[in-house]
Amino acid sequence: MPELTRSVTELINEFAKMPGIGRKSAERLAYYVLRLSHQEALALADAIRNVKENVRYCRNCYNLAEQEECEICRDVSRNHEVICVVEQPRDLMALEQAGVYRGLYHVLLGRVAPLEGIGPDQLTIDTLINRVRGGSIREIVMATNPTVEGDGTALYISNLLSDFPVRVTRLARGITTGSMLEFANKEVLADALSGRQAF
Amino acid sequence: MPELTRSVTELINEFAKMPGIGRKSAERLAYYVLRLSHQEALALADAIRNVKENVRYCRNCYNLAEQEECEICRDVSRNHEVICVVEQPRDLMALEQAGVYRGLYHVLLGRVAPLEGIGPDQLTIDTLINRVRGGSIREIVMATNPTVEGDGTALYISNLLSDFPVRVTRLARGITTGSMLEFANKEVLADALSGRQAF
Repeated sequence: MPELTRSVTELINEFAKMPGIGRKSAERLAYYVLRLSHQEALALADAIRNVKENVRYCRNCYNLAEQEECEICRDVSRNHEVICVVEQPRDLMALEQAGVYRGLYHVLLGRVAPLEGIGPDQLTIDTLINRVRGGSIREIVMATNPTVEGDGTALYISNLLSDFPVRVTRLARGITTGSMLEFANKEVLADALSGRQAF
Repeated sequence: MPELTRSVTELINEFAKMPGIGRKSAERLAYYVLRLSHQEALALADAIRNVKENVRYCRNCYNLAEQEECEICRDVSRNHEVICVVEQPRDLMALEQAGVYRGLYHVLLGRVAPLEGIGPDQLTIDTLINRVRGGSIREIVMATNPTVEGDGTALYISNLLSDFPVRVTRLARGITTGSMLEFANKEVLADALSGRQAF
């Protein structure tokens, strides 16, 4: 059977590797690239290339950075005595977009997941402990995902930190603003009750 | 607010321009690129670049091609007396994947759509008429989409072709194999009845 040209087939194959992109979507994206002007297509190709060439992990916190330290670590207006521990750079971004946290971060680049063979050694926990050992940190806010693995990772790290004079906290659990009590599941309601706050 | 690094933001912007890719999906794709090895990311960037550099339209039929003529036009085993007229290369691919048609194609690169300001002049209809004028074509199969605009385009072209000694047909309309009569809408049932075939 005559096929699409080789270049188009290769592009479809590359797109189909991306998460959430099936064969049909990959074809649609390839046709989109075909319709782009030469310049627009090169902008897309260069954006991919630039990310791999320019972006690295911050040497302190493993956030994405284009220099040795990320913008957050370099920002002297932020509180350098608090570190918020997240699993991935995208979690950091979600917190930044909320715009209420003004301390530093530490990105673990994953979570302890024994079933996937991911142990604590594969995360950036050592570097976190070294940052705390430095002595200027007063609080660690655990902000791993509220999943079995995220909670397990937070517990593991908080145990390691128990030897240091540092306050370890975690994000509050409860009902979500804007939701309906009748649709909340029992775990959420249990969290909300056990963490109830004075008016 | 500190943001993602500039390279990452640019990549997200580029991905977000693609059809069916919203902001969140674009971010997910950018994180995917960040996790790729250098080599894998360059393969993706090069695939985009190669498509723009190598792929052009076939000079006969406007199918995608990497040479002057597409693989279908160059295939001497195909029936060069029949031309199937489609709107886009992806329609051609769908028909090829069915594997039952062995003639040539003609890609219009669109359809007449007055509401979008797309007239017959912007399509490749002139070239199609020239191919028919050549004299060796015996049948034109209209395979534009079964929409108001697709049908209108087919009607327009069949009128132009009425002066030539060529048979003009269109794809059969009816119920789709594997479907349920009870869910077919009345247009489909009307097509199926008016086009009913002898057993």
